[in-house]
Amino acid sequence: MGLMSEGLTQVLIPVAALVGIGFALFQWFLVSKVRVSSESGLDNGYKDRLIEEDEPEEGIDADEAVAKCADIQNAISEGATSFLFTEYKYLGIFTVVFGFIIFLFLGSVNGFSTQSEPCTYNKGNICKPALANAFFSTIAFLLGALTSVLSGFLGMKIATYANARTTLEARKGVGKAFITAFRSGAVMGFLLAANGLLVLYVSINVFKLYYGDDWEGLYESITGYGLGGSSMALFGRVGGGIYTKAADVGADLVGKVERNIPEDDPRNPAVIADNVGDNVGDIAGMGSDLFGSYAESSCAALFVASISSIGISHDYSAMSYPLIISSMGIVVCLITTLFATDIFEIKDVTEIEPTLKRQLLISTILMTAGIAIVSFSALPSEFTLYDFGIEKVVKNWYLFFCVSIGLWAGLVIGYTTEYYTSNAYSPVQDVADSCRTGAATNVIFGLALGYKSVIIPIFAIAIAIYVSFSLAAMYGIAVAALGMLSTIATGLAIDAYGPISDNAGGIAEMAGMSHKIRERTDALDAAGNTTAAIGKGFAIGSAALVSLALFGAFVSRAGIKVVDVLTPKVFIGLIVGAMLPYWFSAMTMKSVGSAALKMVEEVRRQFNNIPGLMEGTAKPDYATCVKISTDASLKEMIPPGALVMLTPLIAGTLFGVETLAGVLAGSLVSGVQVAISASNTGGAWDNAKKYIEAGATEHARMLGPKGSDAHKAAVIGDTIGDPLKDTSGPSLNILIKLMAVESLVFAPFFAAHGGLLFKLL
Amino acid sequence: MGLMSEGLTQVLIPVAALVGIGFALFQWFLVSKVRVSSESGLDNGYKDRLIEEDEPEEGIDADEAVAKCADIQNAISEGATSFLFTEYKYLGIFTVVFGFIIFLFLGSVNGFSTQSEPCTYNKGNICKPALANAFFSTIAFLLGALTSVLSGFLGMKIATYANARTTLEARKGVGKAFITAFRSGAVMGFLLAANGLLVLYVSINVFKLYYGDDWEGLYESITGYGLGGSSMALFGRVGGGIYTKAADVGADLVGKVERNIPEDDPRNPAVIADNVGDNVGDIAGMGSDLFGSYAESSCAALFVASISSIGISHDYSAMSYPLIISSMGIVVCLITTLFATDIFEIKDVTEIEPTLKRQLLISTILMTAGIAIVSFSALPSEFTLYDFGIEKVVKNWYLFFCVSIGLWAGLVIGYTTEYYTSNAYSPVQDVADSCRTGAATNVIFGLALGYKSVIIPIFAIAIAIYVSFSLAAMYGIAVAALGMLSTIATGLAIDAYGPISDNAGGIAEMAGMSHKIRERTDALDAAGNTTAAIGKGFAIGSAALVSLALFGAFVSRAGIKVVDVLTPKVFIGLIVGAMLPYWFSAMTMKSVGSAALKMVEEVRRQFNNIPGLMEGTAKPDYATCVKISTDASLKEMIPPGALVMLTPLIAGTLFGVETLAGVLAGSLVSGVQVAISASNTGGAWDNAKKYIEAGATEHARMLGPKGSDAHKAAVIGDTIGDPLKDTSGPSLNILIKLMAVESLVFAPFFAAHGGLLFKLL
Repeated sequence: MGLMSEGLTQVLIPVAALVGIGFALFQWFLVSKVRVSSESGLDNGYKDRLIEEDEPEEGIDADEAVAKCADIQNAISEGATSFLFTEYKYLGIFTVVFGFIIFLFLGSVNGFSTQSEPCTYNKGNICKPALANAFFSTIAFLLGALTSVLSGFLGMKIATYANARTTLEARKGVGKAFITAFRSGAVMGFLLAANGLLVLYVSINVFKLYYGDDWEGLYESITGYGLGGSSMALFGRVGGGIYTKAADVGADLVGKVERNIPEDDPRNPAVIADNVGDNVGDIAGMGSDLFGSYAESSCAALFVASISSIGISHDYSAMSYPLIISSMGIVVCLITTLFATDIFEIKDVTEIEPTLKRQLLISTILMTAGIAIVSFSALPSEFTLYDFGIEKVVKNWYLFFCVSIGLWAGLVIGYTTEYYTSNAYSPVQDVADSCRTGAATNVIFGLALGYKSVIIPIFAIAIAIYVSFSLAAMYGIAVAALGMLSTIATGLAIDAYGPISDNAGGIAEMAGMSHKIRERTDALDAAGNTTAAIGKGFAIGSAALVSLALFGAFVSRAGIKVVDVLTPKVFIGLIVGAMLPYWFSAMTMKSVGSAALKMVEEVRRQFNNIPGLMEGTAKPDYATCVKISTDASLKEMIPPGALVMLTPLIAGTLFGVETLAGVLAGSLVSGVQVAISASNTGGAWDNAKKYIEAGATEHARMLGPKGSDAHKAAVIGDTIGDPLKDTSGPSLNILIKLMAVESLVFAPFFAAHGGLLFKLL
Repeated sequence: MGLMSEGLTQVLIPVAALVGIGFALFQWFLVSKVRVSSESGLDNGYKDRLIEEDEPEEGIDADEAVAKCADIQNAISEGATSFLFTEYKYLGIFTVVFGFIIFLFLGSVNGFSTQSEPCTYNKGNICKPALANAFFSTIAFLLGALTSVLSGFLGMKIATYANARTTLEARKGVGKAFITAFRSGAVMGFLLAANGLLVLYVSINVFKLYYGDDWEGLYESITGYGLGGSSMALFGRVGGGIYTKAADVGADLVGKVERNIPEDDPRNPAVIADNVGDNVGDIAGMGSDLFGSYAESSCAALFVASISSIGISHDYSAMSYPLIISSMGIVVCLITTLFATDIFEIKDVTEIEPTLKRQLLISTILMTAGIAIVSFSALPSEFTLYDFGIEKVVKNWYLFFCVSIGLWAGLVIGYTTEYYTSNAYSPVQDVADSCRTGAATNVIFGLALGYKSVIIPIFAIAIAIYVSFSLAAMYGIAVAALGMLSTIATGLAIDAYGPISDNAGGIAEMAGMSHKIRERTDALDAAGNTTAAIGKGFAIGSAALVSLALFGAFVSRAGIKVVDVLTPKVFIGLIVGAMLPYWFSAMTMKSVGSAALKMVEEVRRQFNNIPGLMEGTAKPDYATCVKISTDASLKEMIPPGALVMLTPLIAGTLFGVETLAGVLAGSLVSGVQVAISASNTGGAWDNAKKYIEAGATEHARMLGPKGSDAHKAAVIGDTIGDPLKDTSGPSLNILIKLMAVESLVFAPFFAAHGGLLFKLL
């Protein structure tokens, strides 16, 4: 037994979760002090603040701008809320149907028998019937789905609440605007981390009322939580990704390329859909995604621990090690956030990126100490794991290294992503430079950059896997993933900061605010592109570790001792699995392309048919564009979703667990490369364009200004990158995680009834 | 024992090879009857042939055009020869150094002892010392390298010999031109298949003089032949690919996009480099590549057979089964060729693609019968294989199915490739349609098409693997690969036909021939793009099977019984291996991009500084552009080459055979996807552009004509596709094969001394 008593553990976890929620609400309160009101220009409190501004605003009616900001914010918020509710209707149907499938498949394992059975791992003891596991897995699935949807929805709410506020604060300087955007991101990060932890903690304790000492069944059922989380994330990411990019690509192709009007110009009919998209895709989708990763890595670690000596000896504190790590993460992130919002202050645009980078570094260093404390207090000095049939004795300091290496691998991935996607470094500058000879070279250089950016993250992941796998088998991998996600609150804060700043810039443009404010929001946005890429890097890196951990848990649960590449069953799984990310990307890219074509036609139609639109005297019909994005995303998210959800079921049922294991390994090692390269290529193109637009260096000015041939080439690259970085790329990490967690949940069924085709032959 | 005696086998194989060479020389003779002479316009024999032409030529001086054709052909031929000789100097140095490394590493296995040793598989017998194997492996490596270089060089020679002849024949109709181009392709195909077989046959018999009954050592040494073949192919493909695409991209970006002059316009300074590139990249590189695949699959099959009961019982005919299959292939392809050149006649441009497709089908059907004959006559009714330590009894009709399924999988891959890259079907037409909204949607749709085109080939490969693996373990895979390559002479004929037609079109343009002739060569060229893509599909599909077979042989030779994904050593190999194709592509794409930038600057400089160039009154400086391509390709082929050659050595020496096995499996399952999607995306873009240019349908005319916005967008896609389809994509199949064969050759060393790092830790 470790130093921590069960009672202390039972107190610390919920307290940490509640502290996280409290902190999030406090940040929300601080953001809400920036008042936006469309009713009256007098009571918005900005006038007394405007005194802090050194130079007076030029050429804009301050009251009118504020009123416009409020209007636009309302429009975006309403659009996003309305889309999400429509999406949730579809997801509701899916959840009910799939919940039923889970119950049916798992219940059938022992022919719906209500008799208790001998335990699988804890020999000699009696465990609850398979039917009970089917029931509680379904409940856990529903809880996971609900929490995931809630995470995304709350994120969207705070983001749409914050974007106009960020714009308004930008009048007072870049530092104030930065703090507003960052605080809002923190609200999302903390709410998500704390909610995820709390629901999981409560579920375990409630389930325990029924399961009692049957921890095998308890933690097997809990894995449904991860499945619920990630399946909502899949549709959120894919649907949201198609929504946002159909609008973005459509808006850019007509607005920027054909009509030569700026991005986010209110005359562009697709502009509201574009801004709504940022919130439903990048914010709500990302929130669900990272919640899914968090839930899955916790579930994988808990499951593996439950069949180790920890589970068998019923050491509650050691069993809760993954939850305590997450609790510590919330505390560490809380302290880290204060560095950005209170301890340091941003005075210049050049300080934004370094500050965000420093957040990552601070949280990583503090968390390393936190991991040490947790590892030595919660875990017994040594315990025994069952590594695919072989016993493995593990010491508590091994676990310290496992969690820490995951954490630091995350930092390496984050920094590498920053290097390849920020326009402060040579890779993006080279891409920008290649625009001199047109769009073709821009695309060639951008693709090469994306491919190259895979190298270091893969080595980081490989080293993390090797160390944690060697030290503590699949438990090591699971806690390494958890280590990477332990600072999720900070990671999400800097990630959500991106789309918030992007929208803030959009609102500034639409409200007709001064060039100076637009410059500030542009600088926030450029940093946001990089942090969004970093966030995606984290999401992908952690997804790789999580799915490996889930893969390991699945293999354990399915009773496989070896996954041998030298058998045809496994090898065909491997090569077909490696193909799935391509199939999936083909669908999502084509969906964005087709929806964007429709959007282009509609936008062109409006420019041609609405008199006075180009002159700004008539208003465009925003609603039709919103409808195109909504319809396209809801229709087009089904085939890729079906591919991901059905593959494990078909592979497991028809071909059996070995082939399915091959499919999981193949999609993991292939998908992670496609995802990283797609995200970074897209991020680099976006920032290459921004580099030319900003014209901050001699070189950039030589390529620019806006409207030059090089800039036009850069815009084409940016547009191509949109579906890569915001639809295909980030959806792929859900593909690999979700197939793994689904296999784990259905493992008892596959083990009992799987491989029909080979049995028949 | 089978029905065939050793004596009959000893006669049939060389006879088939000599028949193949004789047939190739006869085709060459037929092509040479189209006379091209720059000395005199009178004695070129075309005047009497011109009578066959229905309508008179317009607006061109026939004598002058012929003279020009001859001049251009000479320039291209000289340029290609000169580049290849320069490249061979580098390759010569590499070959000597690497040959020395092979000798050193393999010689060190038993400390350079000259004592004979007990055999590894044929228990109780005495085998030759490791030092002898080191020596003969090195010799086999040198022979393979030489044959590979020869294959590429001869291909280039016949291609540059044929292109002006194709142009001249186009004056008489599309049928005549087609036959000339196709015959020339056949020369290359038959020379390569027959030479490869003959050298291998002779080597085995010469090596046998020393080895006698030690077949283990004999066939282990022979694997060096495959390594030699593929290592030359690597540099040929990468160097040639960079050469051709730097010139092509550079020429297009300035010529087509900036100056609005047609492709292959003689005013473009990069035009000769572009045409030279087609011959050194697509022809010489492809020749070396497919020779490498052929050599490797033969070596893999021979090695696996040598350690089976066939090898142990010294059944020569059964042992030579792979060579007899190839001999049968030559005969089948000979008959097939007659269908295209003599039995049917092409009268219209629409018949070109169907004829080429029919070639594939005819050869596949005939070969299936051939495989049956060979399988039942050469093989004993049953024999025993050693499948990673387990004995497996195999019947001769199993082998029939293994070879046949490889063959038919090749046909499926070929037809799928055709569907996704020919502009006769909806995928390419959709891509062309997306050009309406500009280059960005074109690129998005093109990438999606490439991703999608992976699905069917992967399923075909997976089924072929499953069936052949289940029936005859790794021997089954090796002969399946051989089955896919058994019709290599026909495959190469229709593949080489592509660049020959492309060059013929270029020469027609440069020589100022009439629009009608240009239309015919364009139609030949469009079909050629599709066949080139089919050829790449074959190359990739066979590479996947070959590398799996080599992987199996490596694993057998290294004494590994299981490659378990659930061990950290294997898993990190898997994920890093899956990353290598990206790393490799990043290098090659960037190389093409950088070299193209230099080319663009040079071409722009010439247009700006040479007075009268645009008006056609002054000649451009072709030589400088040739030099840029040459320098870039020779310099830039080294890093990707080093990555491929060093990875197995480093992984094997430092991390050991398990990690290396993981690396091979990872790069195989990931590389095959990247390669297929890259090739098909590029082919589709090229033909989408040609679709708009040709304007054969209502839809195409709506998008066109040349110079329209949609056409400009299509040109950008085509340019991006160039390095994807001709540099990165086709090089990747060499990456996966070469790493596998290198691992096999060095397996004795790794098994004895590998895994230093883990031993130290």
